This record gives sequence, structure tokens and C-alpha cells, in this order.
Amino acid sequence: MKKLINAPDAVVQDALHGVEAAHGDRVRVSYDPAYVVRRDAPVQGKVGLISGGGSGHEPMHGGYVGVGMLDAACPGEVFTSPTPDQMIEATKAVNGGAGVVHVVKNYTGDVMNFEMAADLGKGEGIEVETVLTNDDVAVEDSLYTAGRRGVGVTVLVEKICGGAAEDGRSLNEVAELGRRVNAAGRSMGMALTPCITPGSGEPSFELAEDEVEIGIGIHGEPGRFREKIGPASQIAERLMTPILDDLPFSSGDRVLAFVNGMGGTPLIELYVLYNEVAKIAQQRGLSIERNLIGNFITSLEMQGCSITLLRLDDEMVRYWDAPVNTPGLRW
Amino acid sequence: MKKLINAPDAVVQDALHGVEAAHGDRVRVSYDPAYVVRRDAPVQGKVGLISGGGSGHEPMHGGYVGVGMLDAACPGEVFTSPTPDQMIEATKAVNGGAGVVHVVKNYTGDVMNFEMAADLGKGEGIEVETVLTNDDVAVEDSLYTAGRRGVGVTVLVEKICGGAAEDGRSLNEVAELGRRVNAAGRSMGMALTPCITPGSGEPSFELAEDEVEIGIGIHGEPGRFREKIGPASQIAERLMTPILDDLPFSSGDRVLAFVNGMGGTPLIELYVLYNEVAKIAQQRGLSIERNLIGNFITSLEMQGCSITLLRLDDEMVRYWDAPVNTPGLRW
Repeated sequence: MKKLINAPDAVVQDALHGVEAAHGDRVRVSYDPAYVVRRDAPVQGKVGLISGGGSGHEPMHGGYVGVGMLDAACPGEVFTSPTPDQMIEATKAVNGGAGVVHVVKNYTGDVMNFEMAADLGKGEGIEVETVLTNDDVAVEDSLYTAGRRGVGVTVLVEKICGGAAEDGRSLNEVAELGRRVNAAGRSMGMALTPCITPGSGEPSFELAEDEVEIGIGIHGEPGRFREKIGPASQIAERLMTPILDDLPFSSGDRVLAFVNGMGGTPLIELYVLYNEVAKIAQQRGLSIERNLIGNFITSLEMQGCSITLLRLDDEMVRYWDAPVNTPGLRW
Repeated sequence: MKKLINAPDAVVQDALHGVEAAHGDRVRVSYDPAYVVRRDAPVQGKVGLISGGGSGHEPMHGGYVGVGMLDAACPGEVFTSPTPDQMIEATKAVNGGAGVVHVVKNYTGDVMNFEMAADLGKGEGIEVETVLTNDDVAVEDSLYTAGRRGVGVTVLVEKICGGAAEDGRSLNEVAELGRRVNAAGRSMGMALTPCITPGSGEPSFELAEDEVEIGIGIHGEPGRFREKIGPASQIAERLMTPILDDLPFSSGDRVLAFVNGMGGTPLIELYVLYNEVAKIAQQRGLSIERNLIGNFITSLEMQGCSITLLRLDDEMVRYWDAPVNTPGLRW
């Protein structure tokens, strides 16, 4: 294992120190329990928006803390759920009196711990609403999940709900919007290579030299099938067909197309893939009105990608376009 | 070789189609000869700013085309210089009557072809000034370079000169500012792994399982030495010491610290490294006033990083902070 780290068990703490050193003008970092929070939190009268999950999917979630997106993020160890005490402390830190939304990816540990934190929050008089993301169409149950996994749509929920919260929308409005985004979004991923967590030092799975895995999860959880690698056009088809058929998306739909890198895939390849995605969307009569291309929900240095399609409505577009100022997403 | 591509010789064209599909609201793409240009080019009365180089260093340069940064970029094939006809057509496309600045990384092919394009431009009555970047302190001459290689500082030159050109500064002012940025910037890189170009299908070099190369170039050109991998603190020291000693940087200097990923290194590791960079800067009495962390000048999927330090003056800070709206950098 070769990594730019000091020690496997210090990675998350060291990276948090780096985040504080780099972005201390915008965020504060708490180390025990660990969370990243907007410098100006709590914003009085604004709905607080927090998320969290295992580290290793950067810039998610810590990189999305800032004006127009998350109020706080709770990083677990690499590929490990954060703990309820991180979540409740972050919840309290962002509570400006208007309630707090928890954005939770559907993994058993995350769900359980966020439920506990929501209960603790309510015990302290904080209204908490949960938005669960489960957009991955690849498999119904998985290694760490009952039901579908939460993947790419999480980034879109965080941006769109962040815009709505900044706009002064109520707790129920922000949560309902988040659930609508999740319900209108579908994703699927694939891998060319495994990744290596600092803790294990070993590849998360094995793939032959000429093989890809279609439907992989962001922790290397098994997908639908493996096959010999084909051209980008074929890979786009493999991912787009299940996505399009699942919602289903229909001719005339306005969509946001999100081509995400798993971390180790060069941007030039993501643009090659985006071109194939745009062709398929056009054939199906979809109008891509917004797009996002790059590494936004990764699996350490895994090579691969995921595609997320979100069927847009006017409110989603409005809050997608709203200003955002985070280390990971800014406009 | 496993890559998200259709065919090795179609990568650049396919990616350009992807860029046009994704960012057609902001840029136009010419395919023969190949260049990416601001949609509103030429902007009358504004100095035009163009760059170019081999592809594979994304988002550089095509990802930096837009308001506040480049007017056009000329992509060569992967790790291959673009041709003079690309450069002269891009020069003409961005000429708004105030002259054009060419930002050229110091590689023999790039320098030769941009010189030819500058001569052609002058022949057509376009004033052209060249800013050559050669900030890599690792080695004096290299595989594709007489003198020092141009690396990370190129991104900073493009941003700062882009801000100045947008502000209506003259051709000589923009070029002089770019040269000052290059003169005040120093970089050094390292690799944990090689990368594989689509054309060759083979790793660009071999490194042992426990070895890193210090001083590597962005095409895998040899660096200063190889050694057994140490902690991030040691790697930061290996890169920072030659950088700090070369300008030299002095206690009290205000700097921009740029920690760049080579493409395949997770962001969490770049933040671990940034934390070490910040510690060393503090020990030396430097004040990091601005920073940039992420994949901005890459070497396909290579794992590794580079560090760039720029000694700031007020004008640089002003134009660094100025608004920018490109696919690769936006605020």
C-alpha cells in the first residue's frame, strides 16, 4: 500500500487538520467528536442541514459544508459510519431554532446511528427530519444495506436542499424537497479497479486485467455482473438502460445528468463518457438542462464512474442554480 | 489497459465532444484544428489569453476556458504538443484588437510550436506576447525540456492573468504580470505510481511496490531520486525544502500554497499533505494567504502530488480573488 498518509489510523484526523488549515475562513472543525461546521453556524431562523458517512468519498461530505449547501458534516473513519455522538453534536451546533434536516445515505450503520441522533435531538427539543437517499438501481440489497444504496443523488439533495434552506424555507419544505429529489433520481456505477483502504492495506476486491464490474457500490460492494471491458459507449449503455427504465424516465423529461468519477479516473475519460450519456439521453428524448462532471462522491482511488439522472422540476432547478460556496462545489 | 474510452486514437476528439455537450453554454469547440474557445470570443478591446499543451493534464487547459481565465485552449493528443495551426486559429479567434498572450509551459515542442504561431499571428497583424512557465525546481533539463519544466504555476498564471485581462489591462501589463507570477512561483512533484497513456497502453515507468519518485514531471519524466515511501510529513519536507530554498522564500512572505493531485490520489490524502505543508510554512515564517487543493494539473491517473508556492503581491491577490467561471475553476 502506497499512500500520502502519516499512519493508517491518523488519516481522518490529519485530513481534518488539513481542512481546518485550508478552509478555516469558512468552516470550523471539531475533533472530538469529529465534525466540520459552517463558521457562522448556527444561523438563526435557518433550517440546519447536516450529513455524514464514512470518509473516503471526498469531497463528500465535509467538502460540501458552506453557504448554500451543508451546515455540518460528520466524517466517520474510512468507509465506516460516524457515531451518534458526532451527529447529535453537529445537530446542536447547526440548530438555529428552525429545525435540522439529516441527509442520510442508505447504509445500515448510517441509518441506525442517524436515527439514534434524531431521537437524541428530539429529546433536546430540536425538530429533526430525515431525508434518506437510496438511488442506486444496481441491486436491491447489498453488503451494508437493506434496500437500495444511497449514492450520487446525495450530492444533488445536499445542493438543492442547501439552496432551499438558505432561502428560508421551512423544515418540512426542505425535507419534502429532499425526498422529492431522491424519488426523482436514479444512479448506477461501475469499476475498472478496486481501491485500498488505509486500514486494511489490501484491494477491496479482485478484478481481472480485462474485466469491469457493472453496478458496483462506493465501498466496492458487489454489483450486477462482471464482463470484459468494452468501449465507453457500451459502458454508458450498461449504466443508462437500468437507470432510464427504473423511474422510468420518459421522452420530454428535463434532467440533470451527473457523471461522477470514483476517484482514480481521469477527467478526460469522464468527458468521453459524458458524450455517450448525452447521445443516449438525446435518443430517448430527454433534455439535459443541467450537468455535473467530476469527482464528487468517490471511492478513494478506485477507477470507475457512476451516472446519476435526476428528473428536474422548476424548484429543483432554482435551488440547483442558487449560489454555493463550499470547498467542493462553488458558484 | 482499462480505460473509459472508445478507442485510443479517438480519446481527445470524444472528450472534446463531451466538453461541447456539457459546456456549450459557455464555450465553443473547433475540431479541425482543435481548440476550445469562450462562446463570446473575441471580446472587443480585451487582451486575449490562450494556452495549450498535451492532453491528459485535465482540467488544464480546456477546463480553464471561460470568463476570468483563458479565452481559448489548444489540446494536443495525450502528452503531445498541439500544432501551430491550432494555436494560430485560436489566436485569431480570441483577438479582440488588444493583442493576445500565449501562456506556454516550457516543453520543447510546445515552445517551438507557440513560437511559430506567434510569428504567424504577427504576420497577420496581431500583437502576441508569450509568458513561459518554468517553475519546476526538480531538475534543470529533462526528457522533453531544455531548462526547467513548466508545471503548477501555469494554473496560477492563467487565473491571475485571466483576471487582469478581464479587468481591461493592456497586453504588456498582462504579460508582465504573468512573467512576475512565474518568477515568484516554484513547484516540485512526486509519484507513487506511473500512468498509462491510451496510445501506448503501457505504464510510463516502473516503480517498486514500496517506492516513490521525488521530483517527477507531469509526463512521468525522471525526477531527482527514488526512495522507500515515508510518511506524508517526510514527503512534504522532500518537496518543500527545494522549493523554499530556490526562490528563496523568506520569513514574512505572503504565499499562495497549491497542493495539486496528479489525478489518481484521493482528496483525503491531499488534505493530509496540505496539513504538513501548512506546518512547514509556519515553521519558516510564511503566511499562507491563499490556497488551492485538488486535481488541477494532472498526469492522467498517476498517483502522486505536486506542491507549488507563489510569493504573492497585492496585484496577484486581487486577480486571484477576481470572479472566474470555467468548468475547472469557478468562484
